[in-house]
Amino acid sequence: MKDQLIIFDTTLRDGEQSPGASMTQEEKLRIARQLERMRVDVIEAGFPAASNGDFESVRAIAETIKESTVCALARANENDIRRSGEAIRPAARGRIHTFIATSPIHMEKKLRMTPDQVVEQAVKAIGWAKEYTDDIEFSAEDAGRSEIDFLVRIFTAVIEAGAKTINVPDTVGYNVPTQYANTLRTLIERVPNSDKVIWSVHCHNDLGLAVANSLAAVLAGARQVECTINGLGERAGNAALEEIVMAVRTRQDVFPCDTLIDTTQIVPASKLVSGVTGFPVQPNKAIVGANAFSHESGIHQDGVLKHRETYEIMRAEDVGWGANKLVLGKHSGRNAFRSRLQEIGIVVASEDQLNHAFARFKELADKKHEIFDEDLNALMSDEGVTPEHEHFRLLASRFHSETGETPQAELTIAVGGKETRTSAQGSGPVDAAFKAIEAVAKSGTELLLYSVNAITTGTDAQGEVTVRLSQDGKIVNGQGADTDIIVASAKAYLNALNKLHGKLEKLNPQL
Amino acid sequence: MKDQLIIFDTTLRDGEQSPGASMTQEEKLRIARQLERMRVDVIEAGFPAASNGDFESVRAIAETIKESTVCALARANENDIRRSGEAIRPAARGRIHTFIATSPIHMEKKLRMTPDQVVEQAVKAIGWAKEYTDDIEFSAEDAGRSEIDFLVRIFTAVIEAGAKTINVPDTVGYNVPTQYANTLRTLIERVPNSDKVIWSVHCHNDLGLAVANSLAAVLAGARQVECTINGLGERAGNAALEEIVMAVRTRQDVFPCDTLIDTTQIVPASKLVSGVTGFPVQPNKAIVGANAFSHESGIHQDGVLKHRETYEIMRAEDVGWGANKLVLGKHSGRNAFRSRLQEIGIVVASEDQLNHAFARFKELADKKHEIFDEDLNALMSDEGVTPEHEHFRLLASRFHSETGETPQAELTIAVGGKETRTSAQGSGPVDAAFKAIEAVAKSGTELLLYSVNAITTGTDAQGEVTVRLSQDGKIVNGQGADTDIIVASAKAYLNALNKLHGKLEKLNPQL
Repeated sequence: MKDQLIIFDTTLRDGEQSPGASMTQEEKLRIARQLERMRVDVIEAGFPAASNGDFESVRAIAETIKESTVCALARANENDIRRSGEAIRPAARGRIHTFIATSPIHMEKKLRMTPDQVVEQAVKAIGWAKEYTDDIEFSAEDAGRSEIDFLVRIFTAVIEAGAKTINVPDTVGYNVPTQYANTLRTLIERVPNSDKVIWSVHCHNDLGLAVANSLAAVLAGARQVECTINGLGERAGNAALEEIVMAVRTRQDVFPCDTLIDTTQIVPASKLVSGVTGFPVQPNKAIVGANAFSHESGIHQDGVLKHRETYEIMRAEDVGWGANKLVLGKHSGRNAFRSRLQEIGIVVASEDQLNHAFARFKELADKKHEIFDEDLNALMSDEGVTPEHEHFRLLASRFHSETGETPQAELTIAVGGKETRTSAQGSGPVDAAFKAIEAVAKSGTELLLYSVNAITTGTDAQGEVTVRLSQDGKIVNGQGADTDIIVASAKAYLNALNKLHGKLEKLNPQL
Repeated sequence: MKDQLIIFDTTLRDGEQSPGASMTQEEKLRIARQLERMRVDVIEAGFPAASNGDFESVRAIAETIKESTVCALARANENDIRRSGEAIRPAARGRIHTFIATSPIHMEKKLRMTPDQVVEQAVKAIGWAKEYTDDIEFSAEDAGRSEIDFLVRIFTAVIEAGAKTINVPDTVGYNVPTQYANTLRTLIERVPNSDKVIWSVHCHNDLGLAVANSLAAVLAGARQVECTINGLGERAGNAALEEIVMAVRTRQDVFPCDTLIDTTQIVPASKLVSGVTGFPVQPNKAIVGANAFSHESGIHQDGVLKHRETYEIMRAEDVGWGANKLVLGKHSGRNAFRSRLQEIGIVVASEDQLNHAFARFKELADKKHEIFDEDLNALMSDEGVTPEHEHFRLLASRFHSETGETPQAELTIAVGGKETRTSAQGSGPVDAAFKAIEAVAKSGTELLLYSVNAITTGTDAQGEVTVRLSQDGKIVNGQGADTDIIVASAKAYLNALNKLHGKLEKLNPQL
């Protein structure tokens, strides 16, 4: 039998650290449920020491997820590790992942510690973690630029102290595959008891090599890959889960291992993460891009496709394309609505929330004939914002634009529960709406990004608008969906303002 | 001195074959000029046998480009090669790139030829090509799944016949780096006179390994990489030019060669290609994604950045980020406008066109304070549509939407020069506008994709709308830009209809 390749997803931790990709607890839970459905082995749920919000999110995921291991990240200090230990306490299977920098430049410039002090701190960290769980992972931050002798020394020490998984991150995405594979091979050869632990890789994509580096390391003996949906992550992101999983699955003649992933859940996971973060997936993205299987989309190829395998190495349906069936319409009842929500992993907190959501579903079905899973996700995304988080809320709107006149927006907004009317002119109706909101909110934010994607095909599709606002160096994304693109834009802007309103400072560790 | 790594860009050929990425001749010329400015060695300009339009585009590029080699693709038959030869005739440096399939499955199922016949045909093809140029490239289609002995045999034959560049494509993106590098190494060892030719690679990204496979081949001796801006291309696309170039440049300690590329032109090229095709670049795309250098964007990293190289392996300015300076405003004159257009590579055909464009520039400057290069690109993109191609044109519009009422659009459209008024209601103002257009155009198309991106930051930015329409299996993208998003949407829809109106069937070769 082949070895198992452990898939460690860090969409909710490293992915969430991307500027503009921060998620609410409800959004993180929804993604965690999808990861569990996909049979991800380990879900890195967050960095509990970053903020109370992060702690609560990790804890909520630990309470909810039963099949996957729930992992919390901690720097190699007592406070971080105790916070992580507390956060994963409810988990069926909980892991603490602790890290410290091991490259000369990081030890000297960032930690201001000697190599001896770094080893000592790492061993202490494993000791604190053992009070909470036996499943302990240790990472050498910036391992890609660390000295191999020092890596052997610190890994030997933490394995002796009880670490079960040893992670070798390429923090700055500087490695090339042959070199990175050599690093792994050398470490596995030289570290005593290396066969008693799982070797793990965590690659960044700055040079476009995250997936290739991870796979080269797997061929050299690594048996855990840390990755994210759509390759989300800081800067150019992490290794893309979908590419790792499908390369290994497709090339079983090359790889001595396979994953347990249910690949048919890949495209739904990709769409969910893209919807939540507002980060589009480019059409030519491998596996999950809209064109990735373009031979499947009915395009006539001038008789070229005389034989199916001529141009096909994977089947679109194996990764979940085409699973988006027409599900609901205006005649669908409350039970159909509820059970479809359950099927796509959306948990409704109360009958009240269900009733409210169902009323909005009926409203949407009046405007739009066919309600797809993506529509439900967008609908419930709006729904997930609990009133206490919603300082600003759109109540009503009126827009007018005409050739030769200046576009105009009139809005009624609830501000902290108080109904406020506002209006403005702008270079277009969206600009007018944003200016009308700013006349009330006076946030002084800068609009960094504005994008719209139709959630499904057809002219009556809902537009999902993403706005990215910056305020004093804090960056948030806001989303809004509506069949009226101007209304969706106003909702997205208000959603971003609500996030800024509730946002606390937090730490972003670098791995 | 190090070897030169030849950069062969196929954005205009393989990239343009992506469903929805088809470009007008004017758009192709603009991209070709940017590629020349970036110092790309070889520009694959198109496949002249595909259609008269493709022939004309290749010819126009051959007439315009002076520094880069202009290459035309041809199947290994006399007609294709003569068409290519004619198309590149005006070029300062012209190349013919001919190909034939060499994998058992392709020879049997697609070509229905014996291996002997395939070799004979390939040699004949080189002979025809030699009547036009000495710069001849030969590709073995689906080399990745071909038998090595047969590859040695056919490459030996075409080198003897006069081929100067031998390309080994991984047509279906099935290879992994170690294996692909072995293929190249074996071929270079076994083919006689292999040191007299340039070995080239052309990798597809179906498993996310196009860049890694290309780089592994370079380490094994390849000295030309075929790639595209943003990794555009069929299905999951080709190797991304920006990743290839920056990996080689950044890791000069690993690579025995370097390119001549002016890397500061990379981000402008990426934005141009994304704008023309309407394919967004995901924020976490390496090198050219909006977040790729997020440490540069003023995000406070909690004191982590005590030292610049701690997290940085490339500088954002080296790839052209931050080059988008404020250029023009409402007080800018006609000369400033003209010279900025020249600087960014836009050639205005006549004084009339310049006057018309300048009038539209002034209109835009009235609505929007700061006019960036991206705005000029969008403006001139609209301008590039010559009246004879423009069957449908938006003359005036009026939109109204209000909570509790059905959104409404009234449009005045020129249809074949005749002014027509139309109106419709819809689920939103964009839907209403599209329905109003369909009431007149009766195209029966299906809307596959709708997306909007703000061209620059700020709430008064222009929205650039992309719509993708499908009609009887033909897929086109339409673009429209305006500060009013509904107007931009209507323009984009009409632009797509104009393309369908003028579109001819063409062939898409598979490499």
